[in-house]
Amino acid sequence: ASDQFIIHTPTITATKWWIGGAAHTATHTVVFAQLYVRGKRYGTKSFVVQLRDTHTYKLMPGINIGDIGKKMGRDGIDNGWIQFTNVRIPRTNMLMKHTKVSRAGEVKEPPMAQLTYGALIQGRVAMVVDSGNIAKKAVTIAGRYAAVRRQFSSNPHDVQETKLIDYAIHQYRLMPLLAQAYAFHFTGVETNKLYDDLMDKLESTQPEDESMNEVLDTLKETHATSAGLKAFCTWSTLNAIEACRQTLGGHGYSAYTGLATTYNDFAVHCTWEGDNTILTLQSGRYLVSCYREALAGKSQPEGVSYLNHLDTLLNLGCGVKTNEEILSFDVIQEAWGVVTANVVKKAGDDFETSLKSGMSPEAAYEECSQARLAAAKIHSYGYIFRRFAQAVKSAPEKLQPVLSKLCLLYGLYSIEQNAGFFLQYRYFTPSQMDYVRGQVNVFCREVRQEYIPLIDAFNYSDYMINSPLGVYDGNIYEKYFDQVKRQNPVGGEHPYLPLIQSLLRRDIEDDEPLEDDDEDDE
Amino acid sequence: ASDQFIIHTPTITATKWWIGGAAHTATHTVVFAQLYVRGKRYGTKSFVVQLRDTHTYKLMPGINIGDIGKKMGRDGIDNGWIQFTNVRIPRTNMLMKHTKVSRAGEVKEPPMAQLTYGALIQGRVAMVVDSGNIAKKAVTIAGRYAAVRRQFSSNPHDVQETKLIDYAIHQYRLMPLLAQAYAFHFTGVETNKLYDDLMDKLESTQPEDESMNEVLDTLKETHATSAGLKAFCTWSTLNAIEACRQTLGGHGYSAYTGLATTYNDFAVHCTWEGDNTILTLQSGRYLVSCYREALAGKSQPEGVSYLNHLDTLLNLGCGVKTNEEILSFDVIQEAWGVVTANVVKKAGDDFETSLKSGMSPEAAYEECSQARLAAAKIHSYGYIFRRFAQAVKSAPEKLQPVLSKLCLLYGLYSIEQNAGFFLQYRYFTPSQMDYVRGQVNVFCREVRQEYIPLIDAFNYSDYMINSPLGVYDGNIYEKYFDQVKRQNPVGGEHPYLPLIQSLLRRDIEDDEPLEDDDEDDE
Repeated sequence: ASDQFIIHTPTITATKWWIGGAAHTATHTVVFAQLYVRGKRYGTKSFVVQLRDTHTYKLMPGINIGDIGKKMGRDGIDNGWIQFTNVRIPRTNMLMKHTKVSRAGEVKEPPMAQLTYGALIQGRVAMVVDSGNIAKKAVTIAGRYAAVRRQFSSNPHDVQETKLIDYAIHQYRLMPLLAQAYAFHFTGVETNKLYDDLMDKLESTQPEDESMNEVLDTLKETHATSAGLKAFCTWSTLNAIEACRQTLGGHGYSAYTGLATTYNDFAVHCTWEGDNTILTLQSGRYLVSCYREALAGKSQPEGVSYLNHLDTLLNLGCGVKTNEEILSFDVIQEAWGVVTANVVKKAGDDFETSLKSGMSPEAAYEECSQARLAAAKIHSYGYIFRRFAQAVKSAPEKLQPVLSKLCLLYGLYSIEQNAGFFLQYRYFTPSQMDYVRGQVNVFCREVRQEYIPLIDAFNYSDYMINSPLGVYDGNIYEKYFDQVKRQNPVGGEHPYLPLIQSLLRRDIEDDEPLEDDDEDDE
Repeated sequence: ASDQFIIHTPTITATKWWIGGAAHTATHTVVFAQLYVRGKRYGTKSFVVQLRDTHTYKLMPGINIGDIGKKMGRDGIDNGWIQFTNVRIPRTNMLMKHTKVSRAGEVKEPPMAQLTYGALIQGRVAMVVDSGNIAKKAVTIAGRYAAVRRQFSSNPHDVQETKLIDYAIHQYRLMPLLAQAYAFHFTGVETNKLYDDLMDKLESTQPEDESMNEVLDTLKETHATSAGLKAFCTWSTLNAIEACRQTLGGHGYSAYTGLATTYNDFAVHCTWEGDNTILTLQSGRYLVSCYREALAGKSQPEGVSYLNHLDTLLNLGCGVKTNEEILSFDVIQEAWGVVTANVVKKAGDDFETSLKSGMSPEAAYEECSQARLAAAKIHSYGYIFRRFAQAVKSAPEKLQPVLSKLCLLYGLYSIEQNAGFFLQYRYFTPSQMDYVRGQVNVFCREVRQEYIPLIDAFNYSDYMINSPLGVYDGNIYEKYFDQVKRQNPVGGEHPYLPLIQSLLRRDIEDDEPLEDDDEDDE
């Protein structure tokens, strides 16, 4: 045996695209490729392949690379396309943590294929954390601008124009996004911890250990939850960046404001490491399978523990005596529990109906896609609210009043945005829902009183914010104008002049002075 | 008298920003400035001012101009900032169609200030039309790609992978956007007609004519409706562009796909010619005032005619005997009528409550901002559905089956997206709403059968589409790869080489060959 693998791109559509650093920088790469040994396919494995000679920087034989060119954002990364033509690499260049191939060509697969999922979770958790970080940046810029910019007046007797942030509608645009940024922050912290715990367990548990089943359940839960959260948080943050950008009015369209670039750079989060729609469907599929297990009497892990109480939850209505009682973590948490249980049940029932009509499980899952999507989305809302509420409860006492308001705002606003489900499953009555809508405004106004310290608490330096409209000292207009002038210096010969001279200097016939129309008015 | 106006920028915050063509191109501009005559202010009027010498292209005395620099999109336009320092212009440079200033300094204001609104409507109507046009482009690119791109398989026995467009979830992502593009198309055509009619009437009616009141009512309605539609259609189209871009997966992030650029270029529509939030609030304010008039017995014009039937509409539920009857233009139109009447009533009642508590009308309007926003949004949905249904009814008979499906899909999808209101006001029962949700999927599947001809019917050339992923002949991958290679040629000395040579050629200690871990496995 040659003790080598052959890496090969069989068709143009098998060209590797989007490989970061490939176009101009990388000397080596890790290739994800289908492993074939003696004609049998073993699925996607990883192989180290040299792309360029480390002395001449010329492409290695059999390697064809080009730049994929201009992108929506992140142009600082030289993404390339790569094609391999029968490139031979040593057998030991395969990364063999899970699957191993011996010199003799024996393939030894890992005892549990699920164990390889761990690698996928890390990237997703990182994107939940990144969503929080970028959301904080966006609300900082929009929030600081809104505190300085005055426009029109809500009261004709005011001497000064009204600050943007003092308009009810501006509060409604920004305060829920501030609450959401905090929600994502705490969810990120918590999810990171779950991931670390899981990895510790995976490293320390052997396949034959009794606790392995439990570890695998946690792995499954974390895998599905992180998939749903990655999609939910990156989508919501992308929308939040754009919403913040739009609150800046015309200046939001300037590249100097930073939010247009932030949008363009962030957008790829919705696609890479698993397209958001696909991940959401995966999460929905997990929920359907948990629902079926719960029906069959199997106890479900913490993240989907509402499925352990289907009997009581499915038909539960909000039992408060006065509307004010809705403003509590417990009621809102129950509300999400009830609605999530119902939405998951709907997906599960749709799946069951399709199965009974004779469809294969694959086709039945396909048939209930929309219901799975809805289930995963609602599940994520509830999950994030629980994480936020939990973090508030364990925060230092003097922070609790302000964080509680923020958390209630997040809960109420999320319910308002999904009012259809809360009314559909009759957890809230229409009049309770009216109350919730009204309280969103009330809490926006409350949070407005403390939003500058809440933003400053992110502790982002002006360097990190990188936007004159979001500077800490509020000296927005001068810094903005300074930067624009510095980067677009005035003066010198006009660049267009030679090109348009003949146009400007042509003779125009009948070049009479303009008439004065209102001569007869006098 | 000097017979001149003085154009002056009093403070840095009064600098004109975003002036298209000012930075490098324009020799003259029209300035919107506050008119002061003998110390009295008359509001914003328009003045022609020369910016550059037409021979030397040098800035005129008192004119200070710079480039505002990089923007989110539309970098082909040289937007500039302008400051004026006591620039004198002839009195006749004021555009005096409405307000006139005589040589003697007499100011003659127009008989009806509202007549000047006409100028605002045109830009808004144009943006409704543009929303339709750009939405068509986005669904064309996404739709054609989805017909070619295969990925995974929904059935393990399939030889080929499944086309994206044959996944239920992909249909759910795209088909409603296709229906929406048609809805905006027909709304644009209709709104243009309304605008032309209005302008004809305005030109031919004199302030003293008896019909003037009716014309002014139409003007008011068209002004408010176009404000609401401009905001609604530009927001929805911006979201549709991004949704289409995301359906392209990784390639959606390439600039060659065209949708990232389209997004960046289109985004400004949400801000200019009236910020969308402000326009929506204006539209909501109009609806509140119509509601109050209707309560007082005054008959309301066509666009808000549902307010003439408050008694019957407010508490009306869907009276169908079987769910299938929901699938009709009349029921969906009634549904929107009922819900819109209720949402407008909510805003009107909130306004009334604030007034009674002693607030000024301005403060009361401010207080009900969120309710106004919701009212205007729901009103726009219903308005657009009516325009779409009307267009289908008057379309050639053989087009009616396919257009009817599309229109019903638009109606059902819009209801699903706003389920909260339909349940809140009890027009639909929860079980009817479940039926609506299910039918959205059914209609997505139906429309999928005809979506390629529906896209081709837009008749956009490949030149207009300007995206290899959206080419008419479906030869997507070759054209994409060709374009990327043509614009990013391979070969020649590597650009980074001189910079990284010392890094690549340094000596690394302990440069031992890699060990072969699995030696003992054999």
